[in-house]
Amino acid sequence: MNVTRVHDESYVTLATNENYALGALTLGQSLRNTNTNRRLTVLITTEVPQLLVDQLKSVYDFVELVDVLDSQDSANLALLKRPELGVTFTKLHCWRLTQYRKCVFLDSDCLVLHNVDDLFNSEEFSAVSDIGWPDCFNSGVFVFRPSLDTYSRLLDFAVSQGSFDGGDQGLLNAFYPNWNRLSFVYNMTTNASYSYAPAYKQFKNTVKIVHFIGAQKPWYHTYNLDTQNVIGNVTVHEGDLINQWWRVFTQWVLPHLNNETKNRMRVQLVSRTPL
Amino acid sequence: MNVTRVHDESYVTLATNENYALGALTLGQSLRNTNTNRRLTVLITTEVPQLLVDQLKSVYDFVELVDVLDSQDSANLALLKRPELGVTFTKLHCWRLTQYRKCVFLDSDCLVLHNVDDLFNSEEFSAVSDIGWPDCFNSGVFVFRPSLDTYSRLLDFAVSQGSFDGGDQGLLNAFYPNWNRLSFVYNMTTNASYSYAPAYKQFKNTVKIVHFIGAQKPWYHTYNLDTQNVIGNVTVHEGDLINQWWRVFTQWVLPHLNNETKNRMRVQLVSRTPL
Ligand SMILES: O=c1ccn([C@@H]2O[C@H](COP(=O)(O)OP(=O)(O)O)[C@@H](O)[C@H]2O)c(=O)[nH]1
Ligand SMILES: O=c1ccn([C@@H]2O[C@H](COP(=O)(O)OP(=O)(O)O)[C@@H](O)[C@H]2O)c(=O)[nH]1
Ligand SMILES: [Mn+2]
Ligand SMILES: [Mn+2]
Repeated sequence: MNVTRVHDESYVTLATNENYALGALTLGQSLRNTNTNRRLTVLITTEVPQLLVDQLKSVYDFVELVDVLDSQDSANLALLKRPELGVTFTKLHCWRLTQYRKCVFLDSDCLVLHNVDDLFNSEEFSAVSDIGWPDCFNSGVFVFRPSLDTYSRLLDFAVSQGSFDGGDQGLLNAFYPNWNRLSFVYNMTTNASYSYAPAYKQFKNTVKIVHFIGAQKPWYHTYNLDTQNVIGNVTVHEGDLINQWWRVFTQWVLPHLNNETKNRMRVQLVSRTPL
Repeated sequence: MNVTRVHDESYVTLATNENYALGALTLGQSLRNTNTNRRLTVLITTEVPQLLVDQLKSVYDFVELVDVLDSQDSANLALLKRPELGVTFTKLHCWRLTQYRKCVFLDSDCLVLHNVDDLFNSEEFSAVSDIGWPDCFNSGVFVFRPSLDTYSRLLDFAVSQGSFDGGDQGLLNAFYPNWNRLSFVYNMTTNASYSYAPAYKQFKNTVKIVHFIGAQKPWYHTYNLDTQNVIGNVTVHEGDLINQWWRVFTQWVLPHLNNETKNRMRVQLVSRTPL
């Protein structure tokens, strides 16, 4: 397929360690599979092992190294007093990507099922309701406009107001009280499959982005390569979603991992044939 | 307080039996406590005991008896083939209240904490996101315009399409795909107090209507009259909300109940002094 590339718009994700880098690889590959014509950018920190950085470079157009705490920057220094905002702060780096006119941020625990390039038709700040408190948005998927001015106002806000939930979501919701609402199909958090099961059944074929919120990320589950099924205590619908993540992972990411990483993952992979 | 009454706008609820009538009494009283200047209407069926009907008449301006299945009506007859839609159908009766220009429907398991007369500034069909699937609305609170035409189109739709969740919520969401979104503070479902606890903590003082969704209605809990606390296995925040329901119930509803009803309730009330 011949795709005209749009140079000044990018998907952006973040991975500060090996595990989230595996997520970013799977997410990036899932985006590539939709034939997106936008750029793919991943923000990483020095903790991500070099071999995964190399692999990220084969999926993403740009791999940007960012610091969690940059002592050169006075706003950052002030943030040192709020260590709980560390990861929050790292996500905020995405506003510094001023080589782009517009971006879509995606948590690295997202999986894209269908082309979502139409998200770039929305303006800053667009996001999806959080199903815990739907007047708030979930900060796992959002449309934004890189700007150093916004970046520094966000940092000032973080320092002066903090975050009502201790994370980037509370901060961004307080900063953007008048956000533009996108359909839930752009950020279907996996618990929706049981929080309103009939709606999930009715609308699941329209879902474009699945977001695996919570501590139990897909990469922490055990997956049986022979049956292509996740093993363990998950609902049928959650299992289906986790299986979709693992199918992208095993088909496009796993073959390129080095043996050390594969060995670390072996505990989570079950198969009668050696990897 | 002197309140100019608006005659062509009404709050509407529904109670098909004794338990939901206790809910409707508490809801109606909570509305009265906000000094609303709109009418209060309750739809009941013949199952509601006469003494509760009399008490409903002392709180509501209008008590309307409706049939669950009305054999005079051909659309209703067709509905007989879908017994699961019985309660759905009963809620739909609210569109027949054409003596009103505009209404706000409230489930009888709602409790109003602050004046919500500004809801009448919204148009049909306005409602609040369901936290299970936020592209859908929760059908416990909605603004509508009574109309016999809409009523019959809703019945036709129910007969031809059914409801994707077997209840009125699935039906109404399919019928009104382009609904107007109200803030969550007009229909805060009680599970939100733990589904996103920091947001609940941040925004709970702005909540205007609490909706006790699910099987465990406030009236099924046991309440200690001496400590003014619900007894049993509920989270702190849920307990606070259930206590608020019981405070309205014990102060304004309980004193007027007859002994038979009081005796039936005694199992749920604990006190060292006799009622
Ligand atoms: O240790 C961490 C925690 C988070 N993240 C990034 O921050 C996002 C938000 O965190 P997470 O997805 O774990 O939060 P949840 O969606 O479960 O609330 C992740 O998707 C990653 O992109 C990261 O790189 N390293
Ligand atoms: O047996 C019933 C069930 C429901 N209802 C009415 O229908 C509404 C919706 O039902 P419910 O509140 O139980 O559903 P939930 O909000 O828990 O989904 C109730 O609040 C009542 O107004 C009723 O009168 N009798
Ligand atoms: Mn996430
Ligand atoms: Mn209800």
